[in-house]
Amino acid sequence: MTDAPHDPEMQDIPIGLPASGTRREFDSMGDVEVPADRYYGAQTARSLVHFSIGDDRMPKPVYHAYGIVKKACALVHQAEGRLPSWKAGAIIRAADEAIAGQLDEHFPLYVWQTGSGTQSNMNVNEVLSNRAIQLLGGTLGTQEPVGPNDDVNMGQSSNDTFPTVMHIAAIEEIDGRLLPELDALARTIEDKASQWMQVVKIGRTHLEDATPLTVGQEWSGYAGQIRACIDDIAASRRGLYELAVGGTAVGTGLNAPKGFSANVAAEIARLTGKPFVTAPNKFMAQGSLDAMVRAHGALAGLAVALMKIANDMRWLASGPRCGLGELKLPPNEPGSSIMPGKVNPTQCEAIVMIAIQVLGNNSAVGFAGSQGNFELNAMRPIIINNFLHSARILADGCQKFRTYSVEGTTLDENKIASFVENSLMLVTALSPVIGYQKAAHISESANAEGTTLREAALKSGFVDEATFDRVVDPGSMVGKGLGGA
Amino acid sequence: MTDAPHDPEMQDIPIGLPASGTRREFDSMGDVEVPADRYYGAQTARSLVHFSIGDDRMPKPVYHAYGIVKKACALVHQAEGRLPSWKAGAIIRAADEAIAGQLDEHFPLYVWQTGSGTQSNMNVNEVLSNRAIQLLGGTLGTQEPVGPNDDVNMGQSSNDTFPTVMHIAAIEEIDGRLLPELDALARTIEDKASQWMQVVKIGRTHLEDATPLTVGQEWSGYAGQIRACIDDIAASRRGLYELAVGGTAVGTGLNAPKGFSANVAAEIARLTGKPFVTAPNKFMAQGSLDAMVRAHGALAGLAVALMKIANDMRWLASGPRCGLGELKLPPNEPGSSIMPGKVNPTQCEAIVMIAIQVLGNNSAVGFAGSQGNFELNAMRPIIINNFLHSARILADGCQKFRTYSVEGTTLDENKIASFVENSLMLVTALSPVIGYQKAAHISESANAEGTTLREAALKSGFVDEATFDRVVDPGSMVGKGLGGA
Amino acid sequence: MTDAPHDPEMQDIPIGLPASGTRREFDSMGDVEVPADRYYGAQTARSLVHFSIGDDRMPKPVYHAYGIVKKACALVHQAEGRLPSWKAGAIIRAADEAIAGQLDEHFPLYVWQTGSGTQSNMNVNEVLSNRAIQLLGGTLGTQEPVGPNDDVNMGQSSNDTFPTVMHIAAIEEIDGRLLPELDALARTIEDKASQWMQVVKIGRTHLEDATPLTVGQEWSGYAGQIRACIDDIAASRRGLYELAVGGTAVGTGLNAPKGFSANVAAEIARLTGKPFVTAPNKFMAQGSLDAMVRAHGALAGLAVALMKIANDMRWLASGPRCGLGELKLPPNEPGSSIMPGKVNPTQCEAIVMIAIQVLGNNSAVGFAGSQGNFELNAMRPIIINNFLHSARILADGCQKFRTYSVEGTTLDENKIASFVENSLMLVTALSPVIGYQKAAHISESANAEGTTLREAALKSGFVDEATFDRVVDPGSMVGKGLGGA
Amino acid sequence: MTDAPHDPEMQDIPIGLPASGTRREFDSMGDVEVPADRYYGAQTARSLVHFSIGDDRMPKPVYHAYGIVKKACALVHQAEGRLPSWKAGAIIRAADEAIAGQLDEHFPLYVWQTGSGTQSNMNVNEVLSNRAIQLLGGTLGTQEPVGPNDDVNMGQSSNDTFPTVMHIAAIEEIDGRLLPELDALARTIEDKASQWMQVVKIGRTHLEDATPLTVGQEWSGYAGQIRACIDDIAASRRGLYELAVGGTAVGTGLNAPKGFSANVAAEIARLTGKPFVTAPNKFMAQGSLDAMVRAHGALAGLAVALMKIANDMRWLASGPRCGLGELKLPPNEPGSSIMPGKVNPTQCEAIVMIAIQVLGNNSAVGFAGSQGNFELNAMRPIIINNFLHSARILADGCQKFRTYSVEGTTLDENKIASFVENSLMLVTALSPVIGYQKAAHISESANAEGTTLREAALKSGFVDEATFDRVVDPGSMVGKGLGGA
Repeated sequence: MTDAPHDPEMQDIPIGLPASGTRREFDSMGDVEVPADRYYGAQTARSLVHFSIGDDRMPKPVYHAYGIVKKACALVHQAEGRLPSWKAGAIIRAADEAIAGQLDEHFPLYVWQTGSGTQSNMNVNEVLSNRAIQLLGGTLGTQEPVGPNDDVNMGQSSNDTFPTVMHIAAIEEIDGRLLPELDALARTIEDKASQWMQVVKIGRTHLEDATPLTVGQEWSGYAGQIRACIDDIAASRRGLYELAVGGTAVGTGLNAPKGFSANVAAEIARLTGKPFVTAPNKFMAQGSLDAMVRAHGALAGLAVALMKIANDMRWLASGPRCGLGELKLPPNEPGSSIMPGKVNPTQCEAIVMIAIQVLGNNSAVGFAGSQGNFELNAMRPIIINNFLHSARILADGCQKFRTYSVEGTTLDENKIASFVENSLMLVTALSPVIGYQKAAHISESANAEGTTLREAALKSGFVDEATFDRVVDPGSMVGKGLGGA
Repeated sequence: MTDAPHDPEMQDIPIGLPASGTRREFDSMGDVEVPADRYYGAQTARSLVHFSIGDDRMPKPVYHAYGIVKKACALVHQAEGRLPSWKAGAIIRAADEAIAGQLDEHFPLYVWQTGSGTQSNMNVNEVLSNRAIQLLGGTLGTQEPVGPNDDVNMGQSSNDTFPTVMHIAAIEEIDGRLLPELDALARTIEDKASQWMQVVKIGRTHLEDATPLTVGQEWSGYAGQIRACIDDIAASRRGLYELAVGGTAVGTGLNAPKGFSANVAAEIARLTGKPFVTAPNKFMAQGSLDAMVRAHGALAGLAVALMKIANDMRWLASGPRCGLGELKLPPNEPGSSIMPGKVNPTQCEAIVMIAIQVLGNNSAVGFAGSQGNFELNAMRPIIINNFLHSARILADGCQKFRTYSVEGTTLDENKIASFVENSLMLVTALSPVIGYQKAAHISESANAEGTTLREAALKSGFVDEATFDRVVDPGSMVGKGLGGA
Repeated sequence: MTDAPHDPEMQDIPIGLPASGTRREFDSMGDVEVPADRYYGAQTARSLVHFSIGDDRMPKPVYHAYGIVKKACALVHQAEGRLPSWKAGAIIRAADEAIAGQLDEHFPLYVWQTGSGTQSNMNVNEVLSNRAIQLLGGTLGTQEPVGPNDDVNMGQSSNDTFPTVMHIAAIEEIDGRLLPELDALARTIEDKASQWMQVVKIGRTHLEDATPLTVGQEWSGYAGQIRACIDDIAASRRGLYELAVGGTAVGTGLNAPKGFSANVAAEIARLTGKPFVTAPNKFMAQGSLDAMVRAHGALAGLAVALMKIANDMRWLASGPRCGLGELKLPPNEPGSSIMPGKVNPTQCEAIVMIAIQVLGNNSAVGFAGSQGNFELNAMRPIIINNFLHSARILADGCQKFRTYSVEGTTLDENKIASFVENSLMLVTALSPVIGYQKAAHISESANAEGTTLREAALKSGFVDEATFDRVVDPGSMVGKGLGGA
Repeated sequence: MTDAPHDPEMQDIPIGLPASGTRREFDSMGDVEVPADRYYGAQTARSLVHFSIGDDRMPKPVYHAYGIVKKACALVHQAEGRLPSWKAGAIIRAADEAIAGQLDEHFPLYVWQTGSGTQSNMNVNEVLSNRAIQLLGGTLGTQEPVGPNDDVNMGQSSNDTFPTVMHIAAIEEIDGRLLPELDALARTIEDKASQWMQVVKIGRTHLEDATPLTVGQEWSGYAGQIRACIDDIAASRRGLYELAVGGTAVGTGLNAPKGFSANVAAEIARLTGKPFVTAPNKFMAQGSLDAMVRAHGALAGLAVALMKIANDMRWLASGPRCGLGELKLPPNEPGSSIMPGKVNPTQCEAIVMIAIQVLGNNSAVGFAGSQGNFELNAMRPIIINNFLHSARILADGCQKFRTYSVEGTTLDENKIASFVENSLMLVTALSPVIGYQKAAHISESANAEGTTLREAALKSGFVDEATFDRVVDPGSMVGKGLGGA
């Protein structure tokens, strides 16, 4: 197919429909009135009527990713002569605008819609087709010279493009926002750990006093947790790099040209700079959403780690007079409407709530992932919505947590030292010298009588002064690093 | 306290701050610039900086309910002389505006904030105080003559008002939207059940053919499920009617006047027309959110019931040529971007996804409910956000499901009749006559040889023609009503 | 049907089959070898081969409840002449043995079996039939003179009896073990609350020091939580009292005599002394398990409450030297294999783990409850297993927690008093006198400079000595009871 | 330390304590009576009293793994001269017996115990110490010449050994049972896929008829899902290979000799043949259980995949007369106690229930994983119990599912062919020829009028007979492989 001399020519018309009232659009079921200032067509309008449920809208990154897919398809069709350049060009320009977020207001659909995401795919097809028609000087609502199904959706189905879009949007969120924030948080914690590596503090197990360690050792554990989460989230991308596009309706690729799967995936990889490939098994890629479930599982792992860290921080900062008080968190705001001067660990609380939400979302995602039937898992909107929600609040939450809580945290070294001094669990160092049972009797009697460990030890007669002072030395009880003995 | 002759007088100034740029506001930590066209003050501005996490905003019904609480408190203070009428009047007017939703844009805070909801309480205190100042001719940002803490928040804490507001908002959502929609859905299903009470169809257990029942009997079960959910959700309001307000900081009622708990609860009951009472134990009311957890549990029960119904409907409507095909759901939109003429059970899919989300939310709510410590459960924002989210998508989802799916559902009576005719499980009626084992051999041989049950029965010699025709009569196998034998 | 003079006569043969090797049994699919010393027959043996998955066995209370159902059915059939007395008598005697747990070892099946519980029903049918045959002098394996399907299962289906059994077993567990344990725990906590009602302690919100309350007030909140759980669990029995029996295969009651539903339910009520009734809608009773889901939801509510209480206790007992140390829990065992003299809040930890398990089970139960199709929810074994598991570990856990932790808990009144003395949040009482902002400045400066509140207050000049001493009196800040102001 | 000439000599005494009544044992809290025929000591006996909750026992693989750890520690201590050979030898022999499961009955403790697993560690220490004492001719209950704390637990803590044991037990279960079963299942499904690769069937999306594919393509998707799960579970072992042992009480390695971490890990690697290494950060390894959470997440991914496959199979096998009926599952047992000849997809139901349980367990594991504090996550027993439970029922479930359902599944090729023939969605192939809208009108009119697609197409005039027959050819619509177009 060569471009004829009198092909429609694309004009540089800015985005926008300067009209009011309604416009008539049609689909295979007939005519529908749509707002005249919106690019979308009949199927979007139908969906808005049938599915205005709550206020959960399909997240915008889904549409930005759809722009990438539509552009990649158009490029491949154009290169292989199935779309003339004038038509492909208009579609690509409209797709670029979608990618840039410039058409966001034309994508109003709800999350709770058809489980395949068809309505969002058609929303994109309609908007890009009408925008292309506008650019080419045509009449909106005629589907000419660019049709939503036959042109913009050429060689595609919602069944293969929507999971493709889910993967792209997930990767963009992971790479663009989440992983950088996690790295920044890990680095900040690692800095704290280095800075505090020599500060000896009391350990706590079961919330009860235990043997000492350093504050830096404790924080190295937090950093280690985040680093392991980064690795796991990064690894979870493997399944997401595999794209369904090219499987069309049920995975067989019907109505798509030979080679389309691989070519479009390559184009998407080129456009995004990410190592996307075509999914080797399209029946799995469309009948399941297992890769999405797995990737959300990695987010759940992060939630688990963050909750532990945030809880530790708020407990260690509890007080100021009646708590543990080892840490001082930066006071960002008055904490109480009634108690003057109160300061609360609000960033930690936000992280805890975010972690819980992500774990709740993980239940929903796993459940939804299990509910596929035959050639389609029709639980796509709920899964992508939860995934992007979780990733977003984790990334933003970590950024706030780092900036407004971790970075400004300082130590109350007096409090820390005084706990070490009073602890009875330093007795543990005596165990190899006098045996576990005798050591136990010393600490039990110190506890019962309210004396110091040293007093109780000397009184017991199990150990002499010199030995006690040599053995029970907190500074030498913390070992030499992070790897234990 | 009597109103002096020269008390400030309230003027009828419309809502709005015709200013641009910023305004200086202060709190106990110092000064903050806020947008000049917003009523909120320093603490709201601080929160917007520290907690812009994702796009989850504290739901507006929380603020509408806060309007009710602030109004009730001001009325009680006024009646008992702690607030002069001119001051109480201005606060009440501002509160009425909040109740009506007219101040919504001044409540921009995020869900992921302090776990007590203090920032949202202070947001309300600041907005009502500044709005009252405006009405009274004062200067915004001076906290004079109406202060956010000392006047609007008088005798209150976030710790007691926020859970109060959670209960009010939950009740309003349950009564105002959810229960009416459930009743409408139940009635529609009951109508269908009545209409189809005589249509005999094949039963299915384990997805396998079973003995017959009528379509109406089957649908009566759906209606019964919804009715039981209505009862349970209604009953779950019991705990929600108990209000924490009057407990102030930790439940003791410090800084609140004697009788305040009961008086404010009575006022809230009067303003809302709901049977709110003061919580008999304020330490439980503030240290736990168990009543909210329980109420969300009732929503989870609804999700479970809806999922079964929606799944049955979409399976029974599967086809049109290669599925069960007993039901025909109204075709609301083209179902596929690639398969022409395809129609999908999209409303059912939306309900299934909503149900899964609500069950995921239920995990989050239970988890959060368990994480209280001492005198506060600091997981309030996540719980009220999930509660209102679940209630809303359930209510809206039921409304769409009823309107666009249940009401227009019809039967394919030919298909239904043909299934009954071919089923082998009618053999069950022979069991009391010839015994289970012989009956089993008849149906097994019909299955193996692909014959009808009648053929196999007569061939077996276990039963004669007359007996078979008398006993194996689907119409008489469906019993006489809903209660079984 | 009258009993003939030569009817088989029941002999008083003790339970047991003094045989070794195997015995031949049959079902409609043919012959199967079973262990000669077991009463069960072919279908049980088949199930043991096909479903030996893990080590989860169908809980024994299911079989005890089945004994009740089989007995009730036999009594009704006998009374109405469908079973001769000699046959009914033998079945009833065998059923009584099942009820008493004397046949437990003959019920070996796994949880992971057919979703209807048919295999467990057939296990019961086979065991009771063979035991009855033994009692009547017959030959095991002949199904004569008492057949598993035609006699023991007469007028019944697994589809109606298994959910009946689930309800009975759940009620027995709730009434027999869980509610009594909860009442005992609530009473113990109430005793502690009374005893400690005058001990003033510091409150904590957000883990941070807050205004004071009494230890008794705090514990009254715990008791209130448990009492509310008791009410909710008791209320959740309402749906469980409705029994499916009489619906037979799909709810229509096919093959059961007229009136059977009501008569059997009445008989079960009589045998158990519980207000069981026949389910008004058998299609709902068999197609859903909503009542079970709801009842487990009430258990989840209890888990949430218990977790808060156990967490509070272990935090308040943390130390002994480096924690909050307000409570002393009884030391039941050495806490550490390496740290001599360490004592840990192990009962609290067990409760926390139990609570988490119950919430995990609740996710499974809700999910399973949603997966019914048409006339059967084939997720019965997983639901009853999780229900009985949750109820059991909650009941036992509460018993241990009460006995070995709550009852022996004492106060460290010195520690408690010293916290109150040092707290800065007593400043709140000054707020109504000098205003929130000034009060905030006092507490902030005390915190910054490490002085007492009194010192900072007097230094501020905002309040004089006499006023301070009159207003800032912890004993008068705790109010007068449980209901707040 | 060299072995003296008169060191105690180990005798070859068989396992067992031929005594009755009780024996006196002691720990640091005093004396306790224990059953005379059990090797365990005081702390085990105390735990049995305090924690007899439900019937959940610490899984035996935990103790087998503890045998490995105790043996490895003894070997390292012996090699470095801290334990004389005669003493180490006795401990090692006892440990070998534990590894082999020969001491299982001496490990009776419950899951719901101390959150660190200390009681199970002490149970092992006590049993190995008493068994070693027996082998060396000593007196049980004296802790001489082999002490539970000072010898068997030398250089160890529960805090580092219990998570070590969790990892070892998890790896053994994954490698020994789960992965082999998954591979066997995948191979069986792959065989089916190959065998059925040319059988054209109708596709279904949204449960509605779609374009065709082959049965083999469909099953290749199932196999792909299982293979991806295998990869993910295998990858989840990475974190499990890192062992905490050597961190002792809080991660510093106090009381353990230098190099102990690495040496013991190397010994464990040698004993098990698995690539275990010492955890680089012991504070993370003991303060979190993130690696366990992650590994259970991989099990949840498997549950999601299995549920889809089992659901597809039972739906495709539904009928025999009134369902989809494309597959015939092997009939393993009579399906109904009332409906003669009924056969149900019981293996699929078991898999679905197992999947739901694993997802419920996953909620519990994630929740528990988040609840660590400071130097310990005291939720270890619940996590290892759920992990081993999930892994076990998945492995066994897959084995039964493969053996009794997948392997024996056959096709009803007539049914499959007749669905393809009647389907309207073959119209999709016409779309590129006549456009989506015209194609839609054809299928809609065929549906409305009940005609075949061919009739409707020709009647429409949009396509001629020759074109229709060339284009609408199911056999050519299924593509050429698994990768789509």
